[in-house]
Amino acid sequence: MDTRSRIEAALEKAVGRACAGKAPPAIAEAVRHAVFPGGARVRPRLCLAVAGACGDDTPALSEAACAAVELLHCASLVHDDMPCFDDAATRRGRPSVHALFGEPLALLAGDALIVLAFETIALEAVESPARMARLITTVANSVGLPMGIVAGQAWEVEPDIDMRTYHRAKTGSLFVGAAMSGAIAAGADPNPWRAFGDRLGEAYQVADDLRDAVGSAADIGKPIGQDAAHHRPNAVGQLGTGAALAHLRGLVEAAIASIPPCPRASELETLILSEAKRLVPKELAQSAA
Amino acid sequence: MDTRSRIEAALEKAVGRACAGKAPPAIAEAVRHAVFPGGARVRPRLCLAVAGACGDDTPALSEAACAAVELLHCASLVHDDMPCFDDAATRRGRPSVHALFGEPLALLAGDALIVLAFETIALEAVESPARMARLITTVANSVGLPMGIVAGQAWEVEPDIDMRTYHRAKTGSLFVGAAMSGAIAAGADPNPWRAFGDRLGEAYQVADDLRDAVGSAADIGKPIGQDAAHHRPNAVGQLGTGAALAHLRGLVEAAIASIPPCPRASELETLILSEAKRLVPKELAQSAA
Repeated sequence: MDTRSRIEAALEKAVGRACAGKAPPAIAEAVRHAVFPGGARVRPRLCLAVAGACGDDTPALSEAACAAVELLHCASLVHDDMPCFDDAATRRGRPSVHALFGEPLALLAGDALIVLAFETIALEAVESPARMARLITTVANSVGLPMGIVAGQAWEVEPDIDMRTYHRAKTGSLFVGAAMSGAIAAGADPNPWRAFGDRLGEAYQVADDLRDAVGSAADIGKPIGQDAAHHRPNAVGQLGTGAALAHLRGLVEAAIASIPPCPRASELETLILSEAKRLVPKELAQSAA
Repeated sequence: MDTRSRIEAALEKAVGRACAGKAPPAIAEAVRHAVFPGGARVRPRLCLAVAGACGDDTPALSEAACAAVELLHCASLVHDDMPCFDDAATRRGRPSVHALFGEPLALLAGDALIVLAFETIALEAVESPARMARLITTVANSVGLPMGIVAGQAWEVEPDIDMRTYHRAKTGSLFVGAAMSGAIAAGADPNPWRAFGDRLGEAYQVADDLRDAVGSAADIGKPIGQDAAHHRPNAVGQLGTGAALAHLRGLVEAAIASIPPCPRASELETLILSEAKRLVPKELAQSAA
C-alpha cells in the first residue's frame, strides 16, 4: 500500500471507531469533516517516512502513530479556527467545522479528536508495550503543556513573547513529535530525530508565513493575510520576502544534514526536497529555483 | 497518606509537570485554577476506593489513574462552562476559567488537561505495561466518542435524544471509567465493576438534578436552575421531587448490591453510603432520612 493509502486507512480505522453506530450523528459528521478529505497530510507522511527510514518493523504501530499525529493536528485546526481564536470560516477550501456545525460541536469535535489520538496508539500498541509509553508521552509533549501546540497557541495571548519559543511550540513541536514517534514505532532511538523534526518544523513555519504573506487563498484553501490581520509574527514581515525564502532554503538543507544514520536515508532526503518544492508559493517558485 | 492527600498529591504532580517553568504563564494559571482547589473529588475517590477494594498493589498507578480521571473531569467542566455551552460565570463558588482568563485560554486549558490525563497514565504505567493499554482505552472510552462525556454533551444538540443514553454518556461514563480504572490499576478484572460504576453514575446524576432543582447556589458553588434554563432533561422535572429522591435511594442500594466479591468490600460500602448522604440537598435531607 502506498503512503497516502496507509495514512487514510489508519485515519478511517480510528475515526470509524469513534463515529460508530452509537455516536450522536451530528458530532460524528463534524469529526469526519475535520479529518476528511485531508490536506497534504504533511505530519503523518513525516512520521511514516521516518519509520520507513528506520526499518518500519511494525507497520500497524507506525500507522497508529501517524494517525494519532494527524488527529491531533486536525483537533488543533478545529479549535484554532473557532471565533475566540482566528474566527476562520474556511479551512482546506471548505467551511470550517464551527462554520458548518456550530461552536459547541466544533469544541467537542476537537476534544474527541484529542482523546481518539491517544486511544488509537493504546489500541495498536498492545503488543509493543515498551513502545507504547514512549509514543504516548512523545505525542503528548508535542501537543500539550509546557511546550506543545497548546502552549504555542497560549503564547499568542501573552504580552511578552519569544518568537523562537512560540514557533517551536505552535508548529515545530508536532513535527518533532511526528519524526520521533515514527522512530519509536519502528523500535529506533527517537532522540537523534529531534533536530531533524525541529528544523523541518521551522522550515514549514517559514513556508506557511510566505504563503500567508504572498500566496493566494485559492492555492492554500484558507484566507491569506491572517498573520497581519491578527498581529501575529510572520517571517516575511520580519525579514522581507527574499531573506525569508533564503532562510527556508537554509532550514531545508539543515534538516537534510541532520538525518541520522539509518537504513533508508536517501529516500527520506528525496521526500524532503519534493516537499520543500511543494511548499514554496507559486508566486515565488521562479525566484526560488 | 489519606485518600484526599493521595489525590491532591497526584494532581499536583501532574499539573506541576504541565505548568513547569517553560509554560506560558497565563495558561499555567488557568490550568491550576481549573484543578485547584477541587470540589468533592468524587471520581478520583471512587477510583482509589475500587483500587483499594481490589488490593491496590501498585499505589503509584492507582494514583495516576485517579489523577487522569479528575483531570478529564476538570477539562469537561472548563469546556462545559464556556459561553457556547452553559455560559456559567461561576464554578465551585469561584469564577469559571473563561470568566477569569477569557475564552481562548479556557479552550486551551481544557485541551491541555485532556492531553495531560493520558500523559500521566503513560508516565506512571511504564513498569506495568500490561495495565497501561487497558487504562488508557478505558479512560478514553469514558470521555470520548462514541459514548463518553463528549458524546453526552453532543447529544444536547441533537433533535432526538434518548435520556438514558444521554445521561450514561454525560455523567455515567466517567463513573464507570473511574471504577474500572481503579480495578485495572490494582491488577483486577475491570468488567465486574462496570455495573457498579454505572449505577453510581446514575445516582450521582439524579442527585445533581435534585440539587439543581431544589438546592441553593451557595451550597453547590454554581448557579442553580441551569437545567430548566437550558431546557435540559432533569429527573425532578420528569418524576417530581419525591419520586426522584426514591429513585436515588434505589440506585445507591443497587450500586452497593453490585459490588463484586473483593478483599475490602465493606469499606467501599461505607464510603458509598456516606457519599450518598452528602449528595442529597440539605433541603431534602430530613425527608430522605
